[in-house]
Amino acid sequence: MEVIDVGSADAQRLGMKPITFVRQVLALCIHPELLNDETFPVDVQQRARELLEHCAGGSVGSYAESAGIAHVQQSVAKFITRRDKGLTSDPSHIFMSSGSQRALRCVLKFLLQGSDHAPIGVMTPNPHPHTLLPLLELLGIVSLPYQLQQGAGWALEKAELKRALQANRGNCNPRAIYISNPGDPTGHVQDRESIQDVIQFAAEENLLLLVNEVFQDSVFGDGCEFLSYKKVLFEMGSAYSERVQLASFHSLSNGIMGECGFRAGYVELVNFDALLPYVETELCGSVCAPVIGQIALDVMVDPPQPGEPSFNEYCEQVTVNKDTLKRNVLRGRSFLNSLPGFSCPTVTGGVYLYTHLTLPQMESDNVELLYSSRLLVEEGVCVGVEKCVCTSVPGENSCHIRICVLMPSPALEEVLSRLETFHLRFLNQRS
Amino acid sequence: MEVIDVGSADAQRLGMKPITFVRQVLALCIHPELLNDETFPVDVQQRARELLEHCAGGSVGSYAESAGIAHVQQSVAKFITRRDKGLTSDPSHIFMSSGSQRALRCVLKFLLQGSDHAPIGVMTPNPHPHTLLPLLELLGIVSLPYQLQQGAGWALEKAELKRALQANRGNCNPRAIYISNPGDPTGHVQDRESIQDVIQFAAEENLLLLVNEVFQDSVFGDGCEFLSYKKVLFEMGSAYSERVQLASFHSLSNGIMGECGFRAGYVELVNFDALLPYVETELCGSVCAPVIGQIALDVMVDPPQPGEPSFNEYCEQVTVNKDTLKRNVLRGRSFLNSLPGFSCPTVTGGVYLYTHLTLPQMESDNVELLYSSRLLVEEGVCVGVEKCVCTSVPGENSCHIRICVLMPSPALEEVLSRLETFHLRFLNQRS
Repeated sequence: MEVIDVGSADAQRLGMKPITFVRQVLALCIHPELLNDETFPVDVQQRARELLEHCAGGSVGSYAESAGIAHVQQSVAKFITRRDKGLTSDPSHIFMSSGSQRALRCVLKFLLQGSDHAPIGVMTPNPHPHTLLPLLELLGIVSLPYQLQQGAGWALEKAELKRALQANRGNCNPRAIYISNPGDPTGHVQDRESIQDVIQFAAEENLLLLVNEVFQDSVFGDGCEFLSYKKVLFEMGSAYSERVQLASFHSLSNGIMGECGFRAGYVELVNFDALLPYVETELCGSVCAPVIGQIALDVMVDPPQPGEPSFNEYCEQVTVNKDTLKRNVLRGRSFLNSLPGFSCPTVTGGVYLYTHLTLPQMESDNVELLYSSRLLVEEGVCVGVEKCVCTSVPGENSCHIRICVLMPSPALEEVLSRLETFHLRFLNQRS
Repeated sequence: MEVIDVGSADAQRLGMKPITFVRQVLALCIHPELLNDETFPVDVQQRARELLEHCAGGSVGSYAESAGIAHVQQSVAKFITRRDKGLTSDPSHIFMSSGSQRALRCVLKFLLQGSDHAPIGVMTPNPHPHTLLPLLELLGIVSLPYQLQQGAGWALEKAELKRALQANRGNCNPRAIYISNPGDPTGHVQDRESIQDVIQFAAEENLLLLVNEVFQDSVFGDGCEFLSYKKVLFEMGSAYSERVQLASFHSLSNGIMGECGFRAGYVELVNFDALLPYVETELCGSVCAPVIGQIALDVMVDPPQPGEPSFNEYCEQVTVNKDTLKRNVLRGRSFLNSLPGFSCPTVTGGVYLYTHLTLPQMESDNVELLYSSRLLVEEGVCVGVEKCVCTSVPGENSCHIRICVLMPSPALEEVLSRLETFHLRFLNQRS
């Protein structure tokens, strides 16, 4: 039985197809003899030629600048400006990295540089991306957890931020607050008011904003739209926009593009001006992010335009992926809610279903690990699982299960079917 | 005037052409529709199909295992076994990384984990790779320099190792010795006796061997051959081979392949057995090296074989590159030695000319920086430059210049011509 890993967002592993235009441009950049192959659309050829001109020696085999290929920095800046309805983005404030995790690590290390003897603290949401706490621990950074409100679709509340900071201030020197929007793994999409609250809080407490915005292209809830922290920050006026430090992360791996294997992401830094040279030389190091990933990122932020030969196919493929995601979220949620013990809230963004699961009382302290390891062994489904930190009913075992649903619908049906078989058997054996 | 950067080894920036077989396999892996294109040789198609089968979901867009694609680890292990004439290599002791620098950083961080309050020390050669000291400084590791013997073609002497360790022992806790063989930037190729000396020293002093072997394919001196530290270690018997810890680094970027932009390298660890799971989970992190780079690495360590359609072209291209390198070393050395003040020793490996330069006495303390910055501004040639630490004659200014010569011959002529023009003008203005 083939194992299906839905615990992390790895869409192509789960059978999603790459976007043709991206792969065609990369193939021509890698093997320029194909530039004369007329079976490739003209815009693919043009894009590949243009990108190769921006590679040293005209080759993707050369090193790029450590902050990234200048042309790609410019493409990203234009993308951000379009996204934020005209708000300027400076290419020199954008740093390419081999994935958004790597960029986050760089900025965290930057925080550590200025630290005195007290350990640095970063406020972290609960639930949080499953890669976040190990990274902080590795760097010796204290995590200051703030609880997202399950009953409100995992929204963020300002009063809870204040409580969490006060409760933990003694342990460390709090320097930053980490947010993921849309939420990883909750899928919650913040509205303007909520973002303003966080920015105001960060300004009051002199905290750097570390904003994971890798799911910005995966917002599908009715009436929901993605608002960047940067846009809201600048709309709050110069008292905020000239002072609050913001690092916004985006990635080629997440959401609709799903190109995890190329290892590419970027961070845009706001109000780091005097520190930028330091960031570049000390933190990015002297080695560039993979050139092929940077080129794919260029295509992601600057896709084919109306009238260009690849436009229709590109739009169709993106639409299919987005429709698949939205359909799978609805299907998965309704299926899970039909199983005893599952309670899966509405999801408006991201690629996960993050569902509450109530299990029968058992001897084990780690009932969630028992459940997930049995599910893996017996039915070959690997899910993410976390102990439930919400108010628990005495005598009840509960946990949260994380399932990536960005996959072809038949694959999702297979996952749901295996999960149901396992779940009913698990309950049956313990009733 | 176009700037020519010969200070670092970035062959394709300097105009070297990539190996066709590598690029063809990558193009097909990236854009699998090309698998049915009969203009590609059959062995390219087969290799791409085989590699895609080892990618999750059959796509290079999926994450790989954090230690690397298992199949590529196996290919590397087979390559090492062939190279070392049958000495076994265990694939699970090989870790893929986004470049050999990244792998070195991981192993250095591993050293730091076990450290008490005294800082960790690593013995470093002088001259050394220009990226080495910044990396150690970044990690807070003390460098314990040992001097290579310029008069002996930059050979390594055991007595000097002992002296250097004694002289610096008080400052830190010495934990490792770093060697590059063939030497970066010296080009010196160690013989068996010299390697045995280092291993014996490491065993006596309980030092981990950090061996940069990225130029192992670039040995061209008459009568010289590359011997790996691992092979010599195992030939010294179990008193050494079962005890001395060795980390050997190799890379896709250096030497003949010259694919810097893909960011791929690996480290093989010897006698880390009990610590391997720790290395994997704690140091490599949860994110894989770029998949495309790993695939290129697979091709590098497992090239086309006699009888296969791509064999002849592959061999021709590699031969052209090797011949170009060897010819350029001879040409560059003889040219430099014809200029007043230059003294360039015989080079037997690597990709650099590392030449001594005596300059007229001047007011400046940093005559080497003055020289190199003028050369860049006036003639657009960027060289590596280092203060001379060898015994200096009073009243004489001297330094060392590092020039990568892995480039097409006309490009080298252009560099030499600009250098000559500048050098004679520089001397003339100061005579």
